[in-house]
Amino acid sequence: MSEPIYNRVALIGLGLIASSMGHAMRRWGLAGEITGHARSAETRQAALEIGFCDRVFETAAEAVAGADLVVLAVPVGAMGRIAEEIGPHLAPGATVTDVGSVKQAVIEAVAPHLPDHVIFIPGHPLAGTEHSGPHSGFATLFRNRFCLLVPGAAPAAAVARLRRFWEGMGAVVEEMEAEHHDLVLAVTSHTPHLIAYTMVGVADHLRRVTESEVIKYSAAGFRDFTRIAASDPTMWRDVFLSNREATLDILGRFTEELFVLQRAIRMGDGETLFNYFTRTRAIRRGIIEAGQDTAAPDFGRVKAQED
Amino acid sequence: MSEPIYNRVALIGLGLIASSMGHAMRRWGLAGEITGHARSAETRQAALEIGFCDRVFETAAEAVAGADLVVLAVPVGAMGRIAEEIGPHLAPGATVTDVGSVKQAVIEAVAPHLPDHVIFIPGHPLAGTEHSGPHSGFATLFRNRFCLLVPGAAPAAAVARLRRFWEGMGAVVEEMEAEHHDLVLAVTSHTPHLIAYTMVGVADHLRRVTESEVIKYSAAGFRDFTRIAASDPTMWRDVFLSNREATLDILGRFTEELFVLQRAIRMGDGETLFNYFTRTRAIRRGIIEAGQDTAAPDFGRVKAQED
Repeated sequence: MSEPIYNRVALIGLGLIASSMGHAMRRWGLAGEITGHARSAETRQAALEIGFCDRVFETAAEAVAGADLVVLAVPVGAMGRIAEEIGPHLAPGATVTDVGSVKQAVIEAVAPHLPDHVIFIPGHPLAGTEHSGPHSGFATLFRNRFCLLVPGAAPAAAVARLRRFWEGMGAVVEEMEAEHHDLVLAVTSHTPHLIAYTMVGVADHLRRVTESEVIKYSAAGFRDFTRIAASDPTMWRDVFLSNREATLDILGRFTEELFVLQRAIRMGDGETLFNYFTRTRAIRRGIIEAGQDTAAPDFGRVKAQED
Repeated sequence: MSEPIYNRVALIGLGLIASSMGHAMRRWGLAGEITGHARSAETRQAALEIGFCDRVFETAAEAVAGADLVVLAVPVGAMGRIAEEIGPHLAPGATVTDVGSVKQAVIEAVAPHLPDHVIFIPGHPLAGTEHSGPHSGFATLFRNRFCLLVPGAAPAAAVARLRRFWEGMGAVVEEMEAEHHDLVLAVTSHTPHLIAYTMVGVADHLRRVTESEVIKYSAAGFRDFTRIAASDPTMWRDVFLSNREATLDILGRFTEELFVLQRAIRMGDGETLFNYFTRTRAIRRGIIEAGQDTAAPDFGRVKAQED
């Protein structure tokens, strides 16, 4: 095991991402010490019992004292309040980063509260599951997943150090501008999530099809939507509110496209449907070729039941 | 190995479903002999080489001669033409079934062409992958998946026999009315597929985000949509055209719901979003409790890379 990359890492917020970081730091010896803070006493206690923090504190201010890396891992809407609280307690030369799914809004909320003697490098690991809370983390969550850093004008040495830290947890690190990040994520993550939530909501409201039938026959396509739509409600509320413009932009495009297909169905225009579906199939092939998924068939299947 | 349930099974269409049925019949000894027909000589040859058919024929009429079970496994839009062709060649007492994703349209297209001396029991196995063609089948595709039968006025003994046949391939058989089937599937399968196609199409058209970025960062949610949107274009074109009313009905509801959430984002109404996302999360729990999926976290993960 090599030298730790940071002497003391403070995790603010102890949910899926922070707990996974804690496990990963332990497994690959990336931090000398891990401190943590969560609002809930039960969550703090869980972090100690599970063992991904060495010490936990009732306040974020106490948790960051003496840390050379501070990770803000709370919902995007809570970042500003946390930054305001910890600002006066940050050690000179410390790096502050975050794991929020939106970058422009986080920068606007956090940066004004940070003293000049710390370095702010916003970040976003593209990793997660539909579970949340301190019990849901695992050390390999970030393995072969992208972690996007938005270094802005941060010193190169500090950026390189944070990059080594994420690479130590298995991530593939890329740098990006905040505005571009928010647009890319609106397409690849935020809008798909909103649509999945909507589809599940439609099924929920439908009176003629009972809920038990929706659940019973979910493997025919709907099930994959419910997995996405089971993600943490607080986190996603904040994502949509804070990446409002890009999400509304992509939603508008989505509705236009949907109406084109809806019209083709109504008019019996099979050619438009066939051509559209042929194009989308090609995108899927691109993803498999890029190594971001396997070609193994599993749609509609329960993995444990395959032979 | 027990007695075969049918002496000769004719598979009309030799794609994912038919080839999987062929493999399953072989493995569990459900058919004395398996004949097959596909329009393409290459597909027919593949069926013989892979070995899930004993004999293949250039015409569907030849393939069904002497069969006591005929399985129509072609796209929904081709069912009527096939039924017209095979009608005069069906053996007295034979059971004809199909595997189409829509039931009312298939019944309307097929039933008028069948002679009185055969028994028509429409069916729909809720199983599939995003792959298609004779090479994509495997024997366990139907294991623990539902197969819906629409027996109408068919004799009970013939229905019971077809039920045993599907149970022999591992399926859980349920009976349903055709109209209700089409509505349930519009909610749980057809509309989700159309939405997934649409979302992938939006990403494809987007100029500001390059395709390589969409693919590169697809694991953040979008990837699950592309898997669904890679399904067979011909099959899905026919599904939407033949289950038009139910699909348009559910699409209308979907758009209403989407506008509610879109408005909440625009107005900054976090409470509406939070409450909505909390409800959809509960549906997910229902699916896990019903045994239709596992709680294992895998969203956004490449399985082969997990430890």
